[in-house]
Amino acid sequence: MRLLEDKIRQCGAVLPGEILKVDGFLNHRLDVGLITELGKEFYRVFRNDGVTVIVTVEASGIPLAFAAAQFFNVPVVFAKKGAHKNVGNDCYSADVYSYTKGVSYPVLVSKKYLTADDRVLIIDDFLANGAAARGLMQIVKEAGASLAGVGIAIEKGFQPGGRALREEGVKLVSLAIVDSMTDDSITFREDAALR
Amino acid sequence: MRLLEDKIRQCGAVLPGEILKVDGFLNHRLDVGLITELGKEFYRVFRNDGVTVIVTVEASGIPLAFAAAQFFNVPVVFAKKGAHKNVGNDCYSADVYSYTKGVSYPVLVSKKYLTADDRVLIIDDFLANGAAARGLMQIVKEAGASLAGVGIAIEKGFQPGGRALREEGVKLVSLAIVDSMTDDSITFREDAALR
Repeated sequence: MRLLEDKIRQCGAVLPGEILKVDGFLNHRLDVGLITELGKEFYRVFRNDGVTVIVTVEASGIPLAFAAAQFFNVPVVFAKKGAHKNVGNDCYSADVYSYTKGVSYPVLVSKKYLTADDRVLIIDDFLANGAAARGLMQIVKEAGASLAGVGIAIEKGFQPGGRALREEGVKLVSLAIVDSMTDDSITFREDAALR
Repeated sequence: MRLLEDKIRQCGAVLPGEILKVDGFLNHRLDVGLITELGKEFYRVFRNDGVTVIVTVEASGIPLAFAAAQFFNVPVVFAKKGAHKNVGNDCYSADVYSYTKGVSYPVLVSKKYLTADDRVLIIDDFLANGAAARGLMQIVKEAGASLAGVGIAIEKGFQPGGRALREEGVKLVSLAIVDSMTDDSITFREDAALR
């Protein structure tokens, strides 16, 4: 999606450790107009897939999921990280390994808010190794719900998560796919750019 | 705000420890239509206060802040809890004491995203003792920015945070104020109900 790629080029920064810093518009300061457009694009892509609920994980996935849900007219369920008092004990859970932090953390969704009748669109800000997406997919499976697809704002195409999910037949759509990045240039994959 | 009070009566639950559980629509599963209406109401209340940025804290404040920001046409900055790698070191920070958990945690905002020219609306889902709001107010002060006001979805009016802030002259608007609650009834303060 050109709008997102232009914003990444303009405001993103490449840091050591293959970190793409986009906290000026996507995950600390939020460019609300841009994120609303990303939500609209997720709707365009998945609108015929019978989505009944959007699932994401706190915290950075929430604005994107919320923006998309306004177009789908469905609720959002955001998975909580770690053991939250307010979630209660009756939860679906999965362990997500964080490659940047080198530790695993649990993600939790209350069983009340995901059922076998649901058709789930998973949305998140980043996909690299795919650990968070797979954690949410495991929760969808545990609930007996079906997966409509996975919508990602920025995929690190040089890491293996996206390819593996596509090879398994998951409808994975990333609005920008970074194929390579250095301190002073970012190369995007063309098929994502054509949106 | 009647819409919110009706929803709390219909879907909320009072748990031991003065917990009002609203995770079915406000802070785990999100009723996107309702939250958009709450955002619109924050806009109605604060639209003439020169707001340039909405500040909240992850994770539950984000949907409300995002919804409001769509009407204000301003960015959101959400403070991060704890030491986040991606925030960088150049941050404003404040310690917030959690009465439910009995511990303090730091909240952080990158100095890049809050300046002395900003006029800040703080938005959050709950206000009880006011610790989170005061943490964000301290960050606003550190940045040299000015405070337009504080917008809260649900205030626990039987706890002291709201009264203290109002006595200090803060423009604090809570869309529903719970004056008392028991297992089977919730009493709302009338002035908040009249919205």
